[in-house]
Amino acid sequence: MAGAIAYISRDTDGVAWEKLLTEALGPLDFRRLRDGLGNTDDIEIALAWKPQPGLLASFKNLKMIVSLGMGVDHLLADDKLPHHVAITRIMDDGLVGQMAEFAVYWALWHHRDIAKYAASQKAKKWKPEEFVDSIHRPVGVMGLGTIGTDTAKKFAMLGFPTMGWSRTAKTVPGVETFHGRDALPAFLGKSTILVNVLPLTRETRGLLDKKTFAALPKGAFLINMGRGAHVVDDDLLAALDSGHLAGAALDVFNTEPLPADHPYWAHPKVHITPHMAGYTNPRTASPGVIENIKRLRTGQPLLHTVDPKTGY
Amino acid sequence: MAGAIAYISRDTDGVAWEKLLTEALGPLDFRRLRDGLGNTDDIEIALAWKPQPGLLASFKNLKMIVSLGMGVDHLLADDKLPHHVAITRIMDDGLVGQMAEFAVYWALWHHRDIAKYAASQKAKKWKPEEFVDSIHRPVGVMGLGTIGTDTAKKFAMLGFPTMGWSRTAKTVPGVETFHGRDALPAFLGKSTILVNVLPLTRETRGLLDKKTFAALPKGAFLINMGRGAHVVDDDLLAALDSGHLAGAALDVFNTEPLPADHPYWAHPKVHITPHMAGYTNPRTASPGVIENIKRLRTGQPLLHTVDPKTGY
Repeated sequence: MAGAIAYISRDTDGVAWEKLLTEALGPLDFRRLRDGLGNTDDIEIALAWKPQPGLLASFKNLKMIVSLGMGVDHLLADDKLPHHVAITRIMDDGLVGQMAEFAVYWALWHHRDIAKYAASQKAKKWKPEEFVDSIHRPVGVMGLGTIGTDTAKKFAMLGFPTMGWSRTAKTVPGVETFHGRDALPAFLGKSTILVNVLPLTRETRGLLDKKTFAALPKGAFLINMGRGAHVVDDDLLAALDSGHLAGAALDVFNTEPLPADHPYWAHPKVHITPHMAGYTNPRTASPGVIENIKRLRTGQPLLHTVDPKTGY
Repeated sequence: MAGAIAYISRDTDGVAWEKLLTEALGPLDFRRLRDGLGNTDDIEIALAWKPQPGLLASFKNLKMIVSLGMGVDHLLADDKLPHHVAITRIMDDGLVGQMAEFAVYWALWHHRDIAKYAASQKAKKWKPEEFVDSIHRPVGVMGLGTIGTDTAKKFAMLGFPTMGWSRTAKTVPGVETFHGRDALPAFLGKSTILVNVLPLTRETRGLLDKKTFAALPKGAFLINMGRGAHVVDDDLLAALDSGHLAGAALDVFNTEPLPADHPYWAHPKVHITPHMAGYTNPRTASPGVIENIKRLRTGQPLLHTVDPKTGY
């Protein structure tokens, strides 16, 4: 039998993964961190989410690391990450679709004044709010990888003027694209709804700070489904409290779970979800992983590899 | 100068319409119900929303009635409606897009467990809910006119298995279509989210009754943005209270404004909005009306005409 596949996650049990991989590849030596990994010299492949730093380096015969999230900052944060081992990441249409749903949900919540209507219902008041033509509600998506591109396309298809910003130049049909730091103010200046799906890298850490918030139009709404460390929390709180930002829907945080004493929890303009915008869906993520396991074992080039230098 | 254009609505003032029509057609004799109509023998064209029964019949030289809503039940309810006058209705991409937004908003609210997350935030609890793969969340759209077709396409594009039901056979790319009464149980049996955008006709009045609700899967969610009279209110309340339906987002009601003592207002499973799912947007609706005014005045066939027999 080929080497073992280790499932390294404290958040999920890996049962669905074992089933799908076994169906596709035949009997497997599938080991879960939860149940103990046995002799780790047997491990050829690691499916990993937030591995303990140093753990992957201790697997002497490891040949491929698969990030169970599309973001790989949780791996690159491990300074003992073995650089001679191939790093790949899942590509998950299901997760991509969920992320777009999350962004669309909160954008429509803001755009269609749902909070005001809920308050009117509570007061048993029939009160139509003033209607905002979506032509006056441009949406800006920061990050045009797989998730950002899909999200931006869906906003465009829903009829919102849609813009995208990325590090390098990208073209997305129906979307006005901007790239590089110099173009950031022009992009932000028009974004009445700002959706962040950037990867977390040295360049993007702390990018959502007071300067960025000040560049947004007054009354803008922030949707963060990138990483918590993109946001300077005190700057966001100040921008909300000054009235410059209308609100924020936050799915990711500098510390997760969000500590119970964090001011976000009770802030009237902040909507908190517990990193649920996109769940990795084994049904849609496994085909790419199965393909890469076959490629690894037959010496073909791997797909969806990660460049530790760019961070994605 | 050509005959007068009368703006017959108690809900909106028509200022935007006068501006857009004047820009396109030159100086107009534009009269508003609000300000008094003057000599109604001058009126050639009436833009109407919920006209008082008999009013349109009193305009002796009327040549075209334009429904300011895409639904025309508000006109056909007038039993003195002059049948020798052409009836047309607006086609409004802006309104169509808003209706789809409304349906998508409430579908995502249900699909993504937003109520549970809001409750967790209140309790300062970090609690991811079980994830439902959208492949298990089929959406059924009743009515495949312009609005239903656009709404169904958008659900399909967001990744939901999407079905549509209509009186006559229709084909919509990416959507499984059903038609006729005989196909209704098969359509309803799979609709975990049911979106109603049917026109109100003799055939569809009261269609959302106990039999229809019983045919839905347990835990289904209803989104009504058609007309209030599609729903048998007592049957809906019973289906919610029995637990068969998970909830309902209602934008239209048998009586509007919804009376203050109606049980919907305080029902924990009912979300009320004041007929705001789609506002007529003069920017997007006026081009079709302008085209029809030109056609009327040059003797060409009118577009978007209404057949009083089918009711749309």
